[in-house]
Amino acid sequence: MTESQIRKILDEHKAGGISSEEALHRLRSLPFEDLGFANIDHHRSLRQGFPEVVFGSGKTAEQVAHIVESMHKHDHNILITRTTRQHFESVQQIAPEAEFHESARAIAILKDTRILGKGTVLVVTAGTSDMPVAEEAIVTLKVMGNTADSLYDVGVAGLHRLLDRRERLVQARAVIVVAGMEGALPSVVGGLVSVPVIAVPTSVGYGASFHGVAALLGMLNSCASNVSVVNIDNGYGAAVVASLINRS
Amino acid sequence: MTESQIRKILDEHKAGGISSEEALHRLRSLPFEDLGFANIDHHRSLRQGFPEVVFGSGKTAEQVAHIVESMHKHDHNILITRTTRQHFESVQQIAPEAEFHESARAIAILKDTRILGKGTVLVVTAGTSDMPVAEEAIVTLKVMGNTADSLYDVGVAGLHRLLDRRERLVQARAVIVVAGMEGALPSVVGGLVSVPVIAVPTSVGYGASFHGVAALLGMLNSCASNVSVVNIDNGYGAAVVASLINRS
Amino acid sequence: MTESQIRKILDEHKAGGISSEEALHRLRSLPFEDLGFANIDHHRSLRQGFPEVVFGSGKTAEQVAHIVESMHKHDHNILITRTTRQHFESVQQIAPEAEFHESARAIAILKDTRILGKGTVLVVTAGTSDMPVAEEAIVTLKVMGNTADSLYDVGVAGLHRLLDRRERLVQARAVIVVAGMEGALPSVVGGLVSVPVIAVPTSVGYGASFHGVAALLGMLNSCASNVSVVNIDNGYGAAVVASLINRS
Amino acid sequence: MTESQIRKILDEHKAGGISSEEALHRLRSLPFEDLGFANIDHHRSLRQGFPEVVFGSGKTAEQVAHIVESMHKHDHNILITRTTRQHFESVQQIAPEAEFHESARAIAILKDTRILGKGTVLVVTAGTSDMPVAEEAIVTLKVMGNTADSLYDVGVAGLHRLLDRRERLVQARAVIVVAGMEGALPSVVGGLVSVPVIAVPTSVGYGASFHGVAALLGMLNSCASNVSVVNIDNGYGAAVVASLINRS
Amino acid sequence: MTESQIRKILDEHKAGGISSEEALHRLRSLPFEDLGFANIDHHRSLRQGFPEVVFGSGKTAEQVAHIVESMHKHDHNILITRTTRQHFESVQQIAPEAEFHESARAIAILKDTRILGKGTVLVVTAGTSDMPVAEEAIVTLKVMGNTADSLYDVGVAGLHRLLDRRERLVQARAVIVVAGMEGALPSVVGGLVSVPVIAVPTSVGYGASFHGVAALLGMLNSCASNVSVVNIDNGYGAAVVASLINRS
Amino acid sequence: MTESQIRKILDEHKAGGISSEEALHRLRSLPFEDLGFANIDHHRSLRQGFPEVVFGSGKTAEQVAHIVESMHKHDHNILITRTTRQHFESVQQIAPEAEFHESARAIAILKDTRILGKGTVLVVTAGTSDMPVAEEAIVTLKVMGNTADSLYDVGVAGLHRLLDRRERLVQARAVIVVAGMEGALPSVVGGLVSVPVIAVPTSVGYGASFHGVAALLGMLNSCASNVSVVNIDNGYGAAVVASLINRS
Amino acid sequence: MTESQIRKILDEHKAGGISSEEALHRLRSLPFEDLGFANIDHHRSLRQGFPEVVFGSGKTAEQVAHIVESMHKHDHNILITRTTRQHFESVQQIAPEAEFHESARAIAILKDTRILGKGTVLVVTAGTSDMPVAEEAIVTLKVMGNTADSLYDVGVAGLHRLLDRRERLVQARAVIVVAGMEGALPSVVGGLVSVPVIAVPTSVGYGASFHGVAALLGMLNSCASNVSVVNIDNGYGAAVVASLINRS
Amino acid sequence: MTESQIRKILDEHKAGGISSEEALHRLRSLPFEDLGFANIDHHRSLRQGFPEVVFGSGKTAEQVAHIVESMHKHDHNILITRTTRQHFESVQQIAPEAEFHESARAIAILKDTRILGKGTVLVVTAGTSDMPVAEEAIVTLKVMGNTADSLYDVGVAGLHRLLDRRERLVQARAVIVVAGMEGALPSVVGGLVSVPVIAVPTSVGYGASFHGVAALLGMLNSCASNVSVVNIDNGYGAAVVASLINRS
Repeated sequence: MTESQIRKILDEHKAGGISSEEALHRLRSLPFEDLGFANIDHHRSLRQGFPEVVFGSGKTAEQVAHIVESMHKHDHNILITRTTRQHFESVQQIAPEAEFHESARAIAILKDTRILGKGTVLVVTAGTSDMPVAEEAIVTLKVMGNTADSLYDVGVAGLHRLLDRRERLVQARAVIVVAGMEGALPSVVGGLVSVPVIAVPTSVGYGASFHGVAALLGMLNSCASNVSVVNIDNGYGAAVVASLINRS
Repeated sequence: MTESQIRKILDEHKAGGISSEEALHRLRSLPFEDLGFANIDHHRSLRQGFPEVVFGSGKTAEQVAHIVESMHKHDHNILITRTTRQHFESVQQIAPEAEFHESARAIAILKDTRILGKGTVLVVTAGTSDMPVAEEAIVTLKVMGNTADSLYDVGVAGLHRLLDRRERLVQARAVIVVAGMEGALPSVVGGLVSVPVIAVPTSVGYGASFHGVAALLGMLNSCASNVSVVNIDNGYGAAVVASLINRS
Repeated sequence: MTESQIRKILDEHKAGGISSEEALHRLRSLPFEDLGFANIDHHRSLRQGFPEVVFGSGKTAEQVAHIVESMHKHDHNILITRTTRQHFESVQQIAPEAEFHESARAIAILKDTRILGKGTVLVVTAGTSDMPVAEEAIVTLKVMGNTADSLYDVGVAGLHRLLDRRERLVQARAVIVVAGMEGALPSVVGGLVSVPVIAVPTSVGYGASFHGVAALLGMLNSCASNVSVVNIDNGYGAAVVASLINRS
Repeated sequence: MTESQIRKILDEHKAGGISSEEALHRLRSLPFEDLGFANIDHHRSLRQGFPEVVFGSGKTAEQVAHIVESMHKHDHNILITRTTRQHFESVQQIAPEAEFHESARAIAILKDTRILGKGTVLVVTAGTSDMPVAEEAIVTLKVMGNTADSLYDVGVAGLHRLLDRRERLVQARAVIVVAGMEGALPSVVGGLVSVPVIAVPTSVGYGASFHGVAALLGMLNSCASNVSVVNIDNGYGAAVVASLINRS
Repeated sequence: MTESQIRKILDEHKAGGISSEEALHRLRSLPFEDLGFANIDHHRSLRQGFPEVVFGSGKTAEQVAHIVESMHKHDHNILITRTTRQHFESVQQIAPEAEFHESARAIAILKDTRILGKGTVLVVTAGTSDMPVAEEAIVTLKVMGNTADSLYDVGVAGLHRLLDRRERLVQARAVIVVAGMEGALPSVVGGLVSVPVIAVPTSVGYGASFHGVAALLGMLNSCASNVSVVNIDNGYGAAVVASLINRS
Repeated sequence: MTESQIRKILDEHKAGGISSEEALHRLRSLPFEDLGFANIDHHRSLRQGFPEVVFGSGKTAEQVAHIVESMHKHDHNILITRTTRQHFESVQQIAPEAEFHESARAIAILKDTRILGKGTVLVVTAGTSDMPVAEEAIVTLKVMGNTADSLYDVGVAGLHRLLDRRERLVQARAVIVVAGMEGALPSVVGGLVSVPVIAVPTSVGYGASFHGVAALLGMLNSCASNVSVVNIDNGYGAAVVASLINRS
Repeated sequence: MTESQIRKILDEHKAGGISSEEALHRLRSLPFEDLGFANIDHHRSLRQGFPEVVFGSGKTAEQVAHIVESMHKHDHNILITRTTRQHFESVQQIAPEAEFHESARAIAILKDTRILGKGTVLVVTAGTSDMPVAEEAIVTLKVMGNTADSLYDVGVAGLHRLLDRRERLVQARAVIVVAGMEGALPSVVGGLVSVPVIAVPTSVGYGASFHGVAALLGMLNSCASNVSVVNIDNGYGAAVVASLINRS
Repeated sequence: MTESQIRKILDEHKAGGISSEEALHRLRSLPFEDLGFANIDHHRSLRQGFPEVVFGSGKTAEQVAHIVESMHKHDHNILITRTTRQHFESVQQIAPEAEFHESARAIAILKDTRILGKGTVLVVTAGTSDMPVAEEAIVTLKVMGNTADSLYDVGVAGLHRLLDRRERLVQARAVIVVAGMEGALPSVVGGLVSVPVIAVPTSVGYGASFHGVAALLGMLNSCASNVSVVNIDNGYGAAVVASLINRS
């Protein structure tokens, strides 16, 4: 229910076209969306340049294409995560400008390329195997209007690789740290910067890494107090949090 | 090693007071702190109003007092977390202005009361039992120069309690959500605001809450993408992250 | 052993046709089923319209067909859960009226379409990926004589989607809530209705969802006290419980 | 906001006392509670004889007494769970009719003793050590207007104890089964009755019972399809679910 | 219901004292115990010298004394496990011959000292800290009429301690192996004997022993195929299994 | 080192052919096997009719065939567990009398068909899906010279199926109970018989069955004290334990 | 930055070619590597004969070949772990002398065959299925300049197999023990030798072995105090530790 | 059996005092200890300066004193771990030279103060709370004849604290790294040194540290390949491994 719908009830009531009971009834059941509340995120995304996001996993190519079709009328960016080449082929027929980031498992439809973030978000990985998760973060960052930088394969067993680039670390407005195995990198990075660090554990590793649990626990127990954590392999979520920080 | 020390080496070398070998030796072994790198966080805390923080757990009252004594010479704020009344009594003899926040298990020594954050950080709890963790966050927020607001006992089984206060939710620059049991509140709050939500699982609950694990997992799997998570009962860490966001 | 069999023993004994020893022996070893005890559920299902249920998983197409053949003589409904298209092809040869609900992985043979429930059972899902489990619940509800309604993709990060339909929520006699990831939806629904909520965690999610464990724990720790829980992905079990409530 | 408040806005607007803008503004921000939505559960509890419930754990005696005082003005029943003798002594000064059920750790204030359930709820335990949880269920059942019956110490290793009382089992409108250790009793009871079984795992046991986890897992995997489960030691929650079934 | 009770029904019916309906009714509801089924274990224990066993944990001294009083009329042995000195003092007043095995936390009332086992049951421990669990096994073995032998502190890191006593190992008719920490001893013993080995993990250890879980898993994965396992710290259960083997 | 080798040393020493030092040296390093100790199990298997057993999993068809070839010279039975059809085809060329039990994943080569057990071992399953594990137990029982009986699909949610066959239960000298899901059957069977029950949890189930963990925990916490447990899906190990009991 | 680079700054400054500010700036940001710190391990590997190691898992054949190409210019050994035949084919084109150890999943390029270890490292396995992990250790040992010996299939259920070879055990300078299932072998070996034992749990086993967790826990809880542990299936890591011991 | 006993058998046999049969019999059953095998560790400890070690936990003061008394006759060092002040008071009466290291929970009796290690073992901790575990390691190192050095509170969130002391790191022959929380320090240290790193996880932390599990998993997944791990809080074990390395 839009404002105009509420106005209409008020007007009809004032004009005597509907009784107090009827007006009361309509207002009581008015969809919260119409109060400007429920769909705030929807409107916000349009006004503020937030992308529409589709979680591709478990959806057919037809379903994804159908959703994209309905979103495509607007001029905001669209991001499809956890997607497949099959998804991409269907989406391409609706949105030929769509780009497929294969290692990131993401499709991006960029219509609005304005930079909305105030600075740079830096994405750091411990190893090369963590790159697909980092790529998902970077695509998300770009779709959300950020300048993104990256620093790959700077794990803590070879500290110099990280320390050599500390200039780039301290220039970021938010840092996303992606690491599997023991997940120690966010603590080290957290100690080097004075901005929020968003840690993303990855399922990289074997044996007692338990598909990312070791890294997750390591990050939750970080001795650096500027570290917060998202789900295992959730590059997308980390990028959303970093985007909000970068805009604020 | 301060800048002046490096300058001194350069000057002595230029003046011929020390040989190239000697200058090389001193520079090679110069503590990284002297490069302006290692103690960045230390200097930063002084310049930027960050508090010095002591983790009280597992330290004797004497140890805590000793540490506070050495910190007390400077004019920055001091925060002692996971502390006890015994700690407080020792600290009070050194810093009579120290305040003990018993339920938060925190001691605060406030010397610098400037507001450094740009807006308000809101701390929300699901239940009354989550309040000690929330109080730790609030003390930390204040010691770090933030305006803090709170909203307690607004768990998701009685949504109206939360929805009634949505004005306060949407005005915050960062929201800390503290919840035990099923940890569902961050997802609901995350859907209502467009700023980062820092979720703090608490050990409140029994049985299959597993001392906060259920809440932690719930928060890590949040369907709201602006949610990141810190360790169980870590109100301090959440407040540090929120402070950095609020300043940026 | 039916009543008539017990009568026959008593009569034969009275008439002297069998000795006390023999009567004693027969009665001692009489199958409990014959006492009206052991097969109560069997008779009950016939009289009350409960379906015969086959758990298809781990059975060959031949085995399933064989079981259905023996059930098919009676006029009650038959439900095969966790089944496959191969199962369906075998079953169809015996029961051409069988229907295959592919996403629900269920085969239904409907002979008795009477409505036995007093009201409506509502099946709610948090996301679209939870639909197969919800479909299993709906097929089961129908086979058990219920009017079923559904509300899909109303997860807690977009509350308005749920709140807009609260009329349908409050009209149900029992609500089945199907959710993966953080499993927060049952708590929110539980706070909105005054009937039992049966929560079904799903294995939807990734990383720290641990194949449904996060959702399961969230639901067991629900702060809404009208929520009880069934196994991960067990739409069938939730529907049986809801059916029993709807009939009572 | 009550209905009368909405009417007042409508009337003032109709009478021209407030502008459309002003009416729109007030209606947009009206607390959902005022729509008759948010406090449904509150009103419902008063009208339908639901008790007001206080979770005592983690609250001081003063806090509990304060809450009870505010509830005590009304004529509905009050239940305090997870409480202590200290709580009781404070409550007694406000409500002298309060009763302390020590083993159940519950305080009941019974003002309304009408029977609202249509039949009997039966509470069954596997062992004597499971009794405190069962007692919590029974107090809750009574406070919520049910006729409650109980059957204690009928674990599955001595089946006859259970089978001898099957008459009482089959007469119940809902059965609560409380069991620790292997948690097998709900499956056996579920096979004997045709009403919903609410299973409550208890933390009774040692070693690999893992404080109720073994029982919880056993119950979630029950081969009887009419079983749903609540949290470990949650006799209160099981009784709420059973009450709702018994009233429907 | 005893045989004589069934006979009485048959006789009354034959004599016409009760109608067929009445006889049918009585027989249908006859307690299974009366069929010789349900109380088999009770009668068996009396006839075969099995002890009556009380699980002391969670029972008051009065409750335990009350149970012992009712058991004490018979001439079979009584065993109370997981008991306390308080329990013992109450029991002593009823059964002055009761013996308290403090480290085993067991009370034994020995009335029947016949040896029922055909050979010796050997109880082996890895360390001295495992002795309380071993003592519980030994008390149980004696109460159940076995000759028991023991071999303590023969853990696998000092193999010679075990190998030196291999004569005693190979003479046992069943071996109980009690071990905490890594729980490796049952595999080694299992390879040395050709009788069943009952492994009892203990909660002895620290850190990653997880209160006996490491030992439990080790034993379940034993590479010796004659090993079966009971619950952590369950010396009683191991002794019951060994007794049954020793009698067979 | 055989006896003859020890004699030879003694003789050479007596005859002066070797010095005391040399004799001492040789005796100190004599392989334990030569003392009649280390190979006891090997000789025992030959003398007592124990089969030679090969764990097929992770071995190539060639490796298995090679091992069988070396075993085949003797006249004792051979059992290959966790095997494949490919293994079987290789084995068949060496031992044409080999039989492949496909669902049990076992190959048996029966040369000695003497019955060594004193009575019957009964194998009971909760469901039809538990049958492969039960079949592995039965093949093992036969290869080890036992009379085996079976009772399938008698889970606790339909007690009558079990109670109807209690005659067969009480006649067994040992009972193997195979169950997945909640693993409740061993407790019920344990209460009905007075012989050892060896419980085998299976990986049958889904969701919170955690591939057999729920069943395993249920069995370890059995309230029947004559139950011991082997690894998940370990029908072979249960049969070895039962065989040893049946022979004793 | 090399020493010569630091000298150059000093010289330029002395000569007045750069200002103090400029010299300060360059020195502050000098890469730590240039201080001789960060690349210590790199230089060390070249000087000391350590191999360059590539973790093949998750890298394409092209990536692996590319890395090997850049390493190949030097004369030190190269080891690629967790690799595939596809990797090997690419590597072979660059380094025809490369050897593929298929069961070890390792590629070795041996250029420097000097023996750097002072003695022998012995690799022991509990079963034949543990061999691939042992082979990874052996390839690593050789690439790192050790004399390696092995002892396979000497699990603790047949002690004599191990005890017969104790001569070889006590001659090693370090022992790597590889075991799955219950992981008991390191404790037994640890008791027999007086050198460090590096234990490698393997994912060999089924059911409650939980892919190596049972073995891992067993090893961490070893009652032999000379045992330390590496990750599940990490033969490579164990060999690195053993190599360092063997060289020291 | 000592060498002299074996000689005696040989001599008697040679002299004809005992028959071949008798000599054979005696030699077959000779305790392995007598072969010089079983007590190797005992003799070794005496000859090589290894201490006798008593695990104090779970032993009474009398038991500990009794054990020490029997050990005290020899001239080697004695170490009692996991001990108490009560233990110490009893031990002091037997060995007045005993020293109590309270925070390490260790009693040391130093009789032999020779340095047996070739270099220094360095013990590093992440935080001050990890010190008790480090102290246990240091006492053990000293009792075993090592030169021990320590570096406390150099956690990874303040890297400079560690990097400033890298000279001491690289001089050690083995490094013990003690850390709780995320357990990241061993990876960083492992990257800085080229000797074995023995990592000791501690139970320091809260929430998702799970009493040391997070640190343990972090260390097992270390990206530095020279790291091996011992049990949580096992400072003693780490020191034994380091001692063996330092001597080799």
